[in-house]
Amino acid sequence: MTKAYVGIDIGGTNVKIGIFDGELELASKTSVPVEADIEPEAMVDLIGDTIEKILAEKEMSLDAVEAAGVGSTGQFNLTKGFMISNPNLTKFQNVPLRDMLSKRLGKPTVVDNDGNAACWGEYALGAGKGVSEMILFTLGTGIGSGVVCRGELLHGCGDNAAELGHMIIYPDGRLCGCGQHGCVEAHASAKSTGRKAQEAVEAGEQSSLTKVLEENGAITCKDVYDHLKAGDELAKKVTDDTAKALAILCVNVLHATEPERIVFAGGMIAAGDVLLNKIKEYFNEHIWKMKKETVEICFAVLGGDAGIIGAAALAKHEKDLGRM
Amino acid sequence: MTKAYVGIDIGGTNVKIGIFDGELELASKTSVPVEADIEPEAMVDLIGDTIEKILAEKEMSLDAVEAAGVGSTGQFNLTKGFMISNPNLTKFQNVPLRDMLSKRLGKPTVVDNDGNAACWGEYALGAGKGVSEMILFTLGTGIGSGVVCRGELLHGCGDNAAELGHMIIYPDGRLCGCGQHGCVEAHASAKSTGRKAQEAVEAGEQSSLTKVLEENGAITCKDVYDHLKAGDELAKKVTDDTAKALAILCVNVLHATEPERIVFAGGMIAAGDVLLNKIKEYFNEHIWKMKKETVEICFAVLGGDAGIIGAAALAKHEKDLGRM
Repeated sequence: MTKAYVGIDIGGTNVKIGIFDGELELASKTSVPVEADIEPEAMVDLIGDTIEKILAEKEMSLDAVEAAGVGSTGQFNLTKGFMISNPNLTKFQNVPLRDMLSKRLGKPTVVDNDGNAACWGEYALGAGKGVSEMILFTLGTGIGSGVVCRGELLHGCGDNAAELGHMIIYPDGRLCGCGQHGCVEAHASAKSTGRKAQEAVEAGEQSSLTKVLEENGAITCKDVYDHLKAGDELAKKVTDDTAKALAILCVNVLHATEPERIVFAGGMIAAGDVLLNKIKEYFNEHIWKMKKETVEICFAVLGGDAGIIGAAALAKHEKDLGRM
Repeated sequence: MTKAYVGIDIGGTNVKIGIFDGELELASKTSVPVEADIEPEAMVDLIGDTIEKILAEKEMSLDAVEAAGVGSTGQFNLTKGFMISNPNLTKFQNVPLRDMLSKRLGKPTVVDNDGNAACWGEYALGAGKGVSEMILFTLGTGIGSGVVCRGELLHGCGDNAAELGHMIIYPDGRLCGCGQHGCVEAHASAKSTGRKAQEAVEAGEQSSLTKVLEENGAITCKDVYDHLKAGDELAKKVTDDTAKALAILCVNVLHATEPERIVFAGGMIAAGDVLLNKIKEYFNEHIWKMKKETVEICFAVLGGDAGIIGAAALAKHEKDLGRM
């Protein structure tokens, strides 16, 4: 392997690291747990040591590395490469993460938030391959997103663009964790989907999910899709409502940046075609009739490695363009 | 004047042309009427002749012109410079407008749609000066828009990005001309604002606007804002509803491309502070509490010349970057 790129995915409880070759094929990967109160210096050392260790296992060293990329939870100033804050890493307040890592590795390093890194991964090597305009939605506890326009991630004036899960589609609708009402996240994330079913059962609606709530104390998104397959009416109502909200989100982002492909990722896509087909059905029902839209709505393909792949691909992209 | 740029604004019933100096100061302008059934060749000749005429009045010729820009109604293929169709110009079907004009003038020429050209005008020389991320909304019969990201207009994968007036904010809401339900355009354009008041009066609601409907056969947006100032309750309800829809549009586009400035233009901004302040009030009420947003919501400043200014500024931009 003549050239290597490192992809680093800093999550809530662990850091994933991948080593990629010049064609961004994964050569090796690992995951290390981190405590919420780890000091920034200790984190940077841990990442550096881990990279050296997995490189050594391949009989390589940092000499082979061209550049490193980081995708991470938290709030960033991307121009400066600072992690401003991170609810999962309490000691990270205005930490110059990019420069600290770059110094430790002796290599150019780029940082971005996890939603953007995952989006870039799917764009460069996954479901977005071959297009220059793409949007990714990650359906999990919340709805994360990333937007690629003209082959570049959108960052906005303050590095908070592409928060598409907080588009309001039901004014005065369900309260979102962000403080707004009617965000698509409050209506159609995995968490919201489970919650809507639970609220309906608690309000006395008839459903086979009642037993799940009694036994587990909560209804998850997976429960709802499982019971949909078994023919439960409430599960149908709730999942229809979720798919409709996601379809309207697709309509709205189409009218914003006009992507060629809209990609859904995250735990909730395990629901499969029953989710994807319903989103497409509602999209076709709600989209304008002015012209025929050919946007492709599909699922992500990289799974849990999207973060490290995207981070490494971003490092290669920035390096290739001479921007670092 | 050592260098000149030409800005051309092709509207529904006339073509406006402006000659600008190297700093994009307006040197001269004119407007010529065009028939809906004008042939493309005749239109290009008319534009060329008119440009030569107003240049001659300034003792100049086409020799001084660096480049020309066009902002126009209609559907475009911007990569090819084709006008695909135009409801106002019935003979324009897949017309290579850019190359025809460029040949007639002997100068590099760029074309874009009118919403984008107006947006670029305000961005380069108007209310967007000094920022690199901006969104423009034109409030008229419909709601036009343009989006500037990283100092470039967004065009999308098929030149139909920035159709933000067709974002759905009330699923299953009012029917829009585009065939969708609940578009912001169907709830908050100037036309929709007049229409909502008229429908309410026709449904028997008490209002001083009843007399307007009886006398004029219709209620316009201007009527509604006039009667708001006079204290009419229905006018207050309708204009509040319009401002709320526009505020939610601002929330949604902030979460999409995170502009530094959101600019409203078009006939409806004649309503003045009563409109702008209400939009800001609803925006502050509906925006998330995760972080303080500093986006500036303001009115356009270029008025009716935005089209020719934007077209000329776009010509200079493309020429300066060596893209034509």
